[in-house]
Amino acid sequence: MRLSRPTVHPVQAPPTQAHAQGNADAAPFGVRMKNPQGVPGTLGGLGLRLAQASFAAASLATMASTRVFPSVSAFRYLIAAAILQCLWSLAVASVDIYALLVKRTLRNLKAACLFSVGDGITGSLTLSAACASAGVTCLIGSDVEMCEGNPCARFMAAVAMAFLSWFALAPSFLFNFGFMASRLARH
Amino acid sequence: MRLSRPTVHPVQAPPTQAHAQGNADAAPFGVRMKNPQGVPGTLGGLGLRLAQASFAAASLATMASTRVFPSVSAFRYLIAAAILQCLWSLAVASVDIYALLVKRTLRNLKAACLFSVGDGITGSLTLSAACASAGVTCLIGSDVEMCEGNPCARFMAAVAMAFLSWFALAPSFLFNFGFMASRLARH
Repeated sequence: MRLSRPTVHPVQAPPTQAHAQGNADAAPFGVRMKNPQGVPGTLGGLGLRLAQASFAAASLATMASTRVFPSVSAFRYLIAAAILQCLWSLAVASVDIYALLVKRTLRNLKAACLFSVGDGITGSLTLSAACASAGVTCLIGSDVEMCEGNPCARFMAAVAMAFLSWFALAPSFLFNFGFMASRLARH
Repeated sequence: MRLSRPTVHPVQAPPTQAHAQGNADAAPFGVRMKNPQGVPGTLGGLGLRLAQASFAAASLATMASTRVFPSVSAFRYLIAAAILQCLWSLAVASVDIYALLVKRTLRNLKAACLFSVGDGITGSLTLSAACASAGVTCLIGSDVEMCEGNPCARFMAAVAMAFLSWFALAPSFLFNFGFMASRLARH
């Protein structure tokens, strides 16, 4: 306890940081005030997740509607990858909706680690399944020309939907991984 | 030139920064002293590049040695992707060797942007070509069982080499992209 306190303050101490002059609810120094659209917990991020889930569900439905898919490994793999992608995207979308409802941000290190690892796994599975199915579709459609007995158009549609799902996943992964790397580099 | 110099030093001034006590060639404050192995300009990064190039060259040679590869789109695509991967990895490896010889670091923003974009493009091409060829190889090998007239073992070896090349590429991409993201977040 300091016993001697001055009763007058002749000179006001200047603020040491730039943000000390602002309003009370300003972000602390070094933290951006607004999250960019596309990161988890924003409307853009929620839209990306819903696009991933819907494209994966469309790919799954289109491929499952063909009768020959159980006889080709790549098509079975595409079905499995699309199911996993759909479940993961819907799970993260529900977290996004919760964060939007309670108006909280999801930009912390643990969430970014979890999301980027999950996006990396499901993204590589979806891309590899889409590429494998595209290779088989090209083989059937143009290389040996066996499209008479096979629904080539449905194969192509399923592959295109899987690629679109992956294109919607890539920004989510890059946002989360970049945020994680920048946080890890700061600590 | 300071004209008045004290001849005695009664009190040594305390060092303001931790690194001021170290030797003369210490890194400035905020910069790590050693680059982690695996980033461009280190022996680990050079080893990764050489591994990528050699696996891609092995995949290319194995696939090109089969006589049926021009009749399948996915195998032609694998050849093209392996050529591109090999050229890119050798080009970056020569930059790494130069940086090692002149003892300079490659950890600046422009180099990281260039390397991560190039790694992303060649990596997605190599992965998609490997997956497409794997789908076709599975179709030929296990689904319709036509391995009598086709060199299935060579197809599998070429696909495995392409996957190994991609696995050697992934750490390079993640290092470069993470470094780029942390630098961009700081500015």
